[in-house]
Amino acid sequence: MTGHPQQDQPDLTATDIAHLRAMIAHDQGKRARRLLKAMHPAKVASLLETLTPQQRIAAWHQVDARTEPKVLAHLSAAMRAQLARDLEVDAPPSDSALSTADSPIDDAPETQLHLVLDALDQGKLKRISRLFSKLHPARIAGLLESLPATERAAAWDMVEGERTSKVLRHLHQEVRRRLATEMDLEHLVEAARGLEADDLVDLIQDLPVATGRQILEAMDRRERERLQSMLSYPEDSAGGLMNMDQIAVRANIKIGTLLRYLRLREDLPSNTDKFFVIDRKHHYQGILRTRRVLTARPETMVSDLMETDFEPVLADQPSDAVARRFEEQDLSSAPVVDADGRLLGRITIDDVVDVIREQAAHAMMGMAGLDEETDMFAPVLASSRRRAVWLGINLITAFLAAWVIGLFEGTLQQVVALAVLMPIVASMGGIAGSQTLTLVIRGLATGQLAGGNTRILLLKEAGIGLLNGLLWALVVAALAILWFGNWAIGGIIAVAILLNLLCAAVAGVAIPLLMRRLGIDPALAGSVVLTTVTDIVGFFAFLGLATLILL
Amino acid sequence: MTGHPQQDQPDLTATDIAHLRAMIAHDQGKRARRLLKAMHPAKVASLLETLTPQQRIAAWHQVDARTEPKVLAHLSAAMRAQLARDLEVDAPPSDSALSTADSPIDDAPETQLHLVLDALDQGKLKRISRLFSKLHPARIAGLLESLPATERAAAWDMVEGERTSKVLRHLHQEVRRRLATEMDLEHLVEAARGLEADDLVDLIQDLPVATGRQILEAMDRRERERLQSMLSYPEDSAGGLMNMDQIAVRANIKIGTLLRYLRLREDLPSNTDKFFVIDRKHHYQGILRTRRVLTARPETMVSDLMETDFEPVLADQPSDAVARRFEEQDLSSAPVVDADGRLLGRITIDDVVDVIREQAAHAMMGMAGLDEETDMFAPVLASSRRRAVWLGINLITAFLAAWVIGLFEGTLQQVVALAVLMPIVASMGGIAGSQTLTLVIRGLATGQLAGGNTRILLLKEAGIGLLNGLLWALVVAALAILWFGNWAIGGIIAVAILLNLLCAAVAGVAIPLLMRRLGIDPALAGSVVLTTVTDIVGFFAFLGLATLILL
Repeated sequence: MTGHPQQDQPDLTATDIAHLRAMIAHDQGKRARRLLKAMHPAKVASLLETLTPQQRIAAWHQVDARTEPKVLAHLSAAMRAQLARDLEVDAPPSDSALSTADSPIDDAPETQLHLVLDALDQGKLKRISRLFSKLHPARIAGLLESLPATERAAAWDMVEGERTSKVLRHLHQEVRRRLATEMDLEHLVEAARGLEADDLVDLIQDLPVATGRQILEAMDRRERERLQSMLSYPEDSAGGLMNMDQIAVRANIKIGTLLRYLRLREDLPSNTDKFFVIDRKHHYQGILRTRRVLTARPETMVSDLMETDFEPVLADQPSDAVARRFEEQDLSSAPVVDADGRLLGRITIDDVVDVIREQAAHAMMGMAGLDEETDMFAPVLASSRRRAVWLGINLITAFLAAWVIGLFEGTLQQVVALAVLMPIVASMGGIAGSQTLTLVIRGLATGQLAGGNTRILLLKEAGIGLLNGLLWALVVAALAILWFGNWAIGGIIAVAILLNLLCAAVAGVAIPLLMRRLGIDPALAGSVVLTTVTDIVGFFAFLGLATLILL
Repeated sequence: MTGHPQQDQPDLTATDIAHLRAMIAHDQGKRARRLLKAMHPAKVASLLETLTPQQRIAAWHQVDARTEPKVLAHLSAAMRAQLARDLEVDAPPSDSALSTADSPIDDAPETQLHLVLDALDQGKLKRISRLFSKLHPARIAGLLESLPATERAAAWDMVEGERTSKVLRHLHQEVRRRLATEMDLEHLVEAARGLEADDLVDLIQDLPVATGRQILEAMDRRERERLQSMLSYPEDSAGGLMNMDQIAVRANIKIGTLLRYLRLREDLPSNTDKFFVIDRKHHYQGILRTRRVLTARPETMVSDLMETDFEPVLADQPSDAVARRFEEQDLSSAPVVDADGRLLGRITIDDVVDVIREQAAHAMMGMAGLDEETDMFAPVLASSRRRAVWLGINLITAFLAAWVIGLFEGTLQQVVALAVLMPIVASMGGIAGSQTLTLVIRGLATGQLAGGNTRILLLKEAGIGLLNGLLWALVVAALAILWFGNWAIGGIIAVAILLNLLCAAVAGVAIPLLMRRLGIDPALAGSVVLTTVTDIVGFFAFLGLATLILL
């Protein structure tokens, strides 16, 4: 087994080689890896010998770490030395390629990202799988999202086995959908089985309908029915957030009995800070905190420790209301019931944290016309198309502003200083308005702004607009007079700025409230409408006054 | 005790009446309430009789609900009837003013806010305290934040006893600081005692130094030392987030022993999903999940169930890194250790959720130059001052843009159509740039954008800029030609838009990265700098090209 390569592989055909070559050429790493895994090490070795040096390195990086030594044993000395060298550069000196505890993990995301990019660049995929084996699935997801599309697909191929589901769970919607649709159905189903029910429901909702159906069909009947009932709730409702891993108990048992039952289970779902008490017909009756169970005597009854005033979450409650309640009441989990009060499942804080992050991202990204699930490294064409829509909408408002300016062409021709100063009026209004708008959008999101206090806020914002309008009107007027030596222009710009800041305050409060009433998301379209208003008012006031006074 | 008012109160002096009148006139509800509470019901009754009808109603609303019947008994029939009528209008028919379970709670925040505003308007403060008694402290905090300053102070006076601390904990920084500084020291200390250590540390950090010191001095020595050690960590570090309510166990005890100890404690701190295992010298050794304890046999050793690979949080780790870890790994709590590995405390998910909310608010509010803790109903003058700074900064950039336009006054005079179209060029660049900027700021915040992939992103954004630049350049050129019938202007605006969109892409990536390197928060100042760049490039390219070609 030590010397020359063995030539006793009867079934190594030209087709195999051609296949492998094609797979490597097409970056189908996962397939190549599966093909190689199914082969005898000797066959792999002889296959490697038939390849060009470049192909050989690429193929070598698809060989499973555990079969490496066996394959090496079948190779010629020269080739073995060369591949071993390649292997050694990557591996820590102690050959502990698979140990996770010993090797120092470089925590910095930058270093990890560099490592992945370098490895991809040099085709040394083994390094990636070694790095991934040391990282938390969430970190792997983060790394994948930091990669451009092609590199991402290659790195994704290095995520293996049960980790696939865990990484999938942590990816953002858009990235996940793209990677999942590129997977073989067989592997997608395998990964789906590793997901918790709520995450699987999310995934199915993201995928094309046909793929989702195929995944459902691959599940056993009970699981499928459970998933289907969860899929019947909207994604952004409590029913869409919930999981079905709750532990329900009856009120008339002893804590000791409960503990015996729990010992049989051996482990509990994560975030189990309470059990739910139900009656015979599965109606929710109250909660039993695990900390009560831990501190109770075994002979105590569940009914003595349960809390009946803990309100369950209704399955059709919107998820942002659920998030607010979790946040306000510092909850870790809460029971979900249907309209009849029957216990359906539970919502846990980890999913609520995701909701909170998404809401926040939505508010921020929405203001720039971006989707909160935007893939930072989506292909250029896809990104361009989506952003073009936003630019197009903005172009309409820009042309509206230009049209207003066009009304005063005659005035501008006579007093060209107006053309120089007019962007200042529009810009100050836009900034002041966007401050008010941001405050109102946030107030609506947190529920601080309700029906009763909008008038108070409007008055307050108008007051701020008045004060800041007066202040900056004077400053800009003074600067304009200094610049152009024309008192009339100073006066005109002062009045225009004051008017625009007042309008901006009113529009900043009114636009989001109006949009909300019309069922339009103010975070998404508010800023465009607001800028249109402040541009038009600014240009019209400034140029209109100038026409009246100067001509 | 049934008929006429009794006149046997020897110590009712004119001073008492004057005091009470003054308190009511100055809206010092809490003081009036304390004074009334200390009096005998009979004395209160006779005091009420000396007041004008209006004052009487106001004073009546400060009488404690439990002493109401006693005071009523001492009043004249006519007055009793009148006050009882006032009381009845508010109270549910079953006189269950203090019961919480029976009376229907109106969930809608709007209705609650209306109720509070109406009650304040009519001086019927009892209604507020009755509403508050039914609400969760977090909801009360939300309601208080929805009120303008004066109304807020009046409603705050109706929050009594131990609820004060709970409401305080849920208020945002700015509102909390204002309400806390207006409280008597005595009551502030009382409220402080009701807070958990981490929330108290937050509060002390918010308050003026002298007040904070006074609170510390009022605590007993052990508590004070604990607080001081927590105060030594920055607010935005793990040390500033942690609490000291962890339960630490030794590895060499049996689960049965642990359970016996827990039963002695009777209850556990909330969010206790793990215990921390330490050695003799208080060094952190690992975690023991409560769910393991629940499912273990009593004779198992802690060392058999503990997990030693759970990495503790270092006290000086920044809080956003802690938040990311909680989110990625779905944690409910984590141990905090010092540099020597000694267990200091623990961080719980409820505090992490607050960090996440604050980060998100910071990103959104920062883009409009607002502080994330901004009080929506701060006094007009205070708000105006803070926003004026932002408008002033923006004014500088607006004048820079105006200066660029000013360079081309001669050109504008000859071709006034340029003045009409120039805002379009600047605006398209600003919008495209802000999309890139938002994406980059978010990527930096989530850690997706690290050293290795910025060049890739820059190329991708430039590609998007090129594609959208070409598309919209053609559209705008066509519209401009249709409008002004001038092919040259169409060509000029097309080139200017293309150039500006390319610049916007580069600036959108480069500005936040550069700011980050300089230690400036890109979320705060990025958009101003970006707009300056896109304005200047837009105006310069458009008017400069026009000067070259048209003149």
